[in-house]
Amino acid sequence: VVDEFQSIAALFRPLALGAPEALDLMDDAAVIPSRPGFDLVITKDALVEGVHFLPTDPPGLVAQKLLRVNLSDLAAKAAEPYAYFLAVAWPKAWDAPRRAAFASGLALDQARFGLKLLGGDTVSTPGPLTLSVTMLGWVPAGGMIKRSGAGAGDVLLVSGGIGDGGLGLAAARGELNHLDETVRDYLAERYRLPEPRVTMRDLLRRYATAAADVSDGLLADAGHIGEASHLGLEIKLDEIPRSAAAGAWLKGQSDTSAALARLASSGDDYEVVCTIPPTEVDAAILAAAAFGLALTPIGRVTPSTGLRVTFNGDEVRVSGGGWTHP
Amino acid sequence: VVDEFQSIAALFRPLALGAPEALDLMDDAAVIPSRPGFDLVITKDALVEGVHFLPTDPPGLVAQKLLRVNLSDLAAKAAEPYAYFLAVAWPKAWDAPRRAAFASGLALDQARFGLKLLGGDTVSTPGPLTLSVTMLGWVPAGGMIKRSGAGAGDVLLVSGGIGDGGLGLAAARGELNHLDETVRDYLAERYRLPEPRVTMRDLLRRYATAAADVSDGLLADAGHIGEASHLGLEIKLDEIPRSAAAGAWLKGQSDTSAALARLASSGDDYEVVCTIPPTEVDAAILAAAAFGLALTPIGRVTPSTGLRVTFNGDEVRVSGGGWTHP
Repeated sequence: VVDEFQSIAALFRPLALGAPEALDLMDDAAVIPSRPGFDLVITKDALVEGVHFLPTDPPGLVAQKLLRVNLSDLAAKAAEPYAYFLAVAWPKAWDAPRRAAFASGLALDQARFGLKLLGGDTVSTPGPLTLSVTMLGWVPAGGMIKRSGAGAGDVLLVSGGIGDGGLGLAAARGELNHLDETVRDYLAERYRLPEPRVTMRDLLRRYATAAADVSDGLLADAGHIGEASHLGLEIKLDEIPRSAAAGAWLKGQSDTSAALARLASSGDDYEVVCTIPPTEVDAAILAAAAFGLALTPIGRVTPSTGLRVTFNGDEVRVSGGGWTHP
Repeated sequence: VVDEFQSIAALFRPLALGAPEALDLMDDAAVIPSRPGFDLVITKDALVEGVHFLPTDPPGLVAQKLLRVNLSDLAAKAAEPYAYFLAVAWPKAWDAPRRAAFASGLALDQARFGLKLLGGDTVSTPGPLTLSVTMLGWVPAGGMIKRSGAGAGDVLLVSGGIGDGGLGLAAARGELNHLDETVRDYLAERYRLPEPRVTMRDLLRRYATAAADVSDGLLADAGHIGEASHLGLEIKLDEIPRSAAAGAWLKGQSDTSAALARLASSGDDYEVVCTIPPTEVDAAILAAAAFGLALTPIGRVTPSTGLRVTFNGDEVRVSGGGWTHP
């Protein structure tokens, strides 16, 4: 208990400075005044060492990833990042310097994304480092972009490049050794430190009918938009955008369709998949380009339910997050 | 991923029924409309198997305890329970029936305390079951009872009985075998299933200048009120209220002062310690008695900082959550 309080004071209190809501982390709870005209958007994601990040990942990067996977949810909802609550279960092996490095990672991304720490809990565990963040953001009342808002005929688009997260995990594990070192380093970095698409906020508010973040894999997350909207989706594998690094990997694959399905089924991309009415698509793509982000049409919303995936016009059967040829 | 979605659907979606904010747990986030005139009170507590509960504790009771330790924070802040977010890291050994029993425990206490599940995350872990809840409650704007509001001369009071939690842990571990089985069962139950003092809400709003929940031990948590208020405290060990079961244990202890210090230093009581101006104390005690709760004066707030603990008028030195004779 004494240790917990000293640890909170030394490590985390500086992260709550300037946030009166946090009461210096000295109370049982934080208190957030109502903000009339705005809705509070809340998401909560957990990460476990050895499951969601590698035991060898630097503590500061783990902290940044913890914030960023939650920021990615807010980004897809067009919410303005506001604050977060943190629960950490420390293993004994996490000594003071590692904890300090972890807190430094939080500080870095708090400053970058405009977040403040409002509270939480630190406990000890005989198991692996286990983390959860509850993150809060603001949207104008009624303005959250949901998964359920897609309309039949809307175009399906995705930001950035797909598959870097999954390839990055493989690279970080020392696989993919046939690729250049610079390519492997780029991919591993994309896995360790995703870039939440917070810059898409205004664009989504203006153009999107539905959106989701790509954390479980493009096909799965796009599929959730279809399910929530009670509509179907057609996705063209050959249109899926990929980074130069993913392109280098793809060149070495004999079965391009299967390789693209793998990219579209692997997780940890933290891009945004969204639906936009056809008449607005060009304007949305231009708006994204204006801040240097690719926004790529990859399919469309169909009246009948279900996910139809094609490669060069031919249907490819996809099941359970994986894929099979028909 | 597919497993996660099926598990969420089967286990947790029923817990979010009737809560439009939760969007059927099918979106990236929940969305909470502003409630003008009210502040949102948010607390987050984590529990780890083998640290905060015993591996042999029934899953349903673990779920209830998880909600109740958070409800206890809301109770001490005079906040009306509203909703929660849940993160669960399941070990492999937690099979479907255990998970279902866990969800049933959540359902039970949701109904009892008026809570709804709004979101969260379920992941797997190679370690012990690790849980966190982020709980939300409402208070009228500016009405949260903080730790920092105590005034010099205020009376320090505590609800219920102190020490049952710590003795209950010992009993649950099979210690305290010199006590009657009914006494041990009562204590173990108090440890496994604390009773958050949500009924104190109106009383605290009307009378209390400061309050905290007793989770780390009475002396530590009362001490936090003193620190946050920049004042001191005098606590009379001999006045500390105890249950009949704790009384039975106390009778067998040769050093009453040391035994009372142990009760006042052990955690998991989930009572409320608060400060009330002297002129209001009688009315507050009567108000508590009206709903069957004991509220007992145990000391007072002093102008000079620091914690002064006495037994029958003599000072007892207390350090680091423990105690020593002077």
